[in-house]
Amino acid sequence: MLIVPEREIGNLMTRAAAFDAVEGVFAAMASKNAYNFPVVREAIGYEDALYGFKGGFDRAGKTLGLKAGGYWPNNLEKFDLINHQSTVFLFDPDTGRVKAIVGGNLLTALRTAAASSVSIKHLAREDAKVLGMIGAGHQATFQLRAALEQRSFEKVVGWNYHPEMLPNIEKVAAEAGLPFEAAQLDRLGQEADVVISITSAFAPSLMADHVSPGTHIACMGTDTKGKQELDAALLPRATVFTDEVAQSVSIGEAQHAVAQGLIAQSDVQQIGAVINGTHPGRTSAEEITLFDGTGVGLQDLAVAASVVDLAVQQGIAIEVDF
Amino acid sequence: MLIVPEREIGNLMTRAAAFDAVEGVFAAMASKNAYNFPVVREAIGYEDALYGFKGGFDRAGKTLGLKAGGYWPNNLEKFDLINHQSTVFLFDPDTGRVKAIVGGNLLTALRTAAASSVSIKHLAREDAKVLGMIGAGHQATFQLRAALEQRSFEKVVGWNYHPEMLPNIEKVAAEAGLPFEAAQLDRLGQEADVVISITSAFAPSLMADHVSPGTHIACMGTDTKGKQELDAALLPRATVFTDEVAQSVSIGEAQHAVAQGLIAQSDVQQIGAVINGTHPGRTSAEEITLFDGTGVGLQDLAVAASVVDLAVQQGIAIEVDF
Repeated sequence: MLIVPEREIGNLMTRAAAFDAVEGVFAAMASKNAYNFPVVREAIGYEDALYGFKGGFDRAGKTLGLKAGGYWPNNLEKFDLINHQSTVFLFDPDTGRVKAIVGGNLLTALRTAAASSVSIKHLAREDAKVLGMIGAGHQATFQLRAALEQRSFEKVVGWNYHPEMLPNIEKVAAEAGLPFEAAQLDRLGQEADVVISITSAFAPSLMADHVSPGTHIACMGTDTKGKQELDAALLPRATVFTDEVAQSVSIGEAQHAVAQGLIAQSDVQQIGAVINGTHPGRTSAEEITLFDGTGVGLQDLAVAASVVDLAVQQGIAIEVDF
Repeated sequence: MLIVPEREIGNLMTRAAAFDAVEGVFAAMASKNAYNFPVVREAIGYEDALYGFKGGFDRAGKTLGLKAGGYWPNNLEKFDLINHQSTVFLFDPDTGRVKAIVGGNLLTALRTAAASSVSIKHLAREDAKVLGMIGAGHQATFQLRAALEQRSFEKVVGWNYHPEMLPNIEKVAAEAGLPFEAAQLDRLGQEADVVISITSAFAPSLMADHVSPGTHIACMGTDTKGKQELDAALLPRATVFTDEVAQSVSIGEAQHAVAQGLIAQSDVQQIGAVINGTHPGRTSAEEITLFDGTGVGLQDLAVAASVVDLAVQQGIAIEVDF
């Protein structure tokens, strides 16, 4: 059994490796070589924690297992630990024996950033110049760093409900040598060629009339019933893609447009189909494309398997005779 | 993070510790201090394997986590590994961080044996003399060993679909200094004061008219829709107990009697209520009591937590800075 502790992930994992892992498993899902198991998510009635398991099997990559963990809202205050805590467990699909234990905290951030990045690669206009960020928390910095690698962006515009957090993303833009401007949502929507929304909001920020033709929007924050980042009226104007359709229409951003009858479940496409070439993706410079990133267990397994390979190559994986 | 490998479990874990752990968690379930999460069980479409997760949280014992693994039918032939493979992962309920990784194979056998043993302690007549075994596979030897510690049994009678396997349990009886007799099911039912059924059958072996008044029956093999060990007509004649009512009536032995309208779900009681003293249990020497042991994740977590404590006490747990 191999162990890759949380503290090693930052030295091992690259954005490029996370991108490849997530792109690969989205493709495998669309070609039915990989599938996610039902998600278990429990409010355990202790420490206000949410705990659960996201499992799956990628037959192509021979990756089997789960991410377990959740959200402990008092961690930071009580223990100086981050509130999201997760661990990935990989199993050998040939025997059912446990194969690797991998710290899942940084990996979760990287795989979420990789997902919007994959959507930009496959759906944004090639000539995209302005990147709009809605949200400026810790995860927003990961999304921004990964996104900047996908197009020759010339400027970042950002909005956050708490404007005092905007320096978080301004700093990332500056590191990439790009100017940053704080903007209201209407101007952000008008200027941006690509928008990433990464908030934990329960009401829409970006409205349908804010968005210009040709924009690609990666909506990454909605992963629960009731959460919402975008005006539901945006979705019928856009070609809508997602990681997993069943999640998109139930707990993802598409839940609202589907519930209101603005789009049907059949209007939501797997992004893996675009990666595989079975869906054309964007077909014009005026089309609005929208990626609803809900987050699936297979993403976690894919990046964990990738980091285990890197840890073995570099002699860093701890081996325990189990 | 502590690791207790499979190879250490046999030296560490005792039947007494497994008994205490399982009795305690059944009690906690009945007093609503512990609950099981929804079970994930997937035919993964590879190696004919069944894989899944059984999780739960015991607030009283502060035990949180899951057992992951399943059934790999080709393991023995291909890899000289047992076909059932499982691992238990314990988490710190205060922080959500992983706390221990424990080999789950022997623990699963011990916790299943402990469950029927707990039922015998709380439901069998004190003067029980003859123990009847239906089933003579590997797991039957665990059930028998544990059961013999609960009453002053004087004889073991056994039946198995393949009689050539009966020496497996005859040997265990001999180790305990008890005579063993192979018997047909009618005589087994007539003679036995306690019956343990531990098969993977899909049709009843023990019929209602085989069973004498005053018998306690622990039915341990039925854990899937369609499996059946007992005549459904036995259940309305008995006072029926189980580990978890929802499982008993859906995938446990009570599924058939409930589906046929012979008993109602409300006729099935939690054995934890007897342990806690909120249900009287057996009330006469003529009453037939029946325990439907379906197997729950909390049992696995309880024995795993117990073995981690033993491993720490004995300096055997492997500590990895995770």
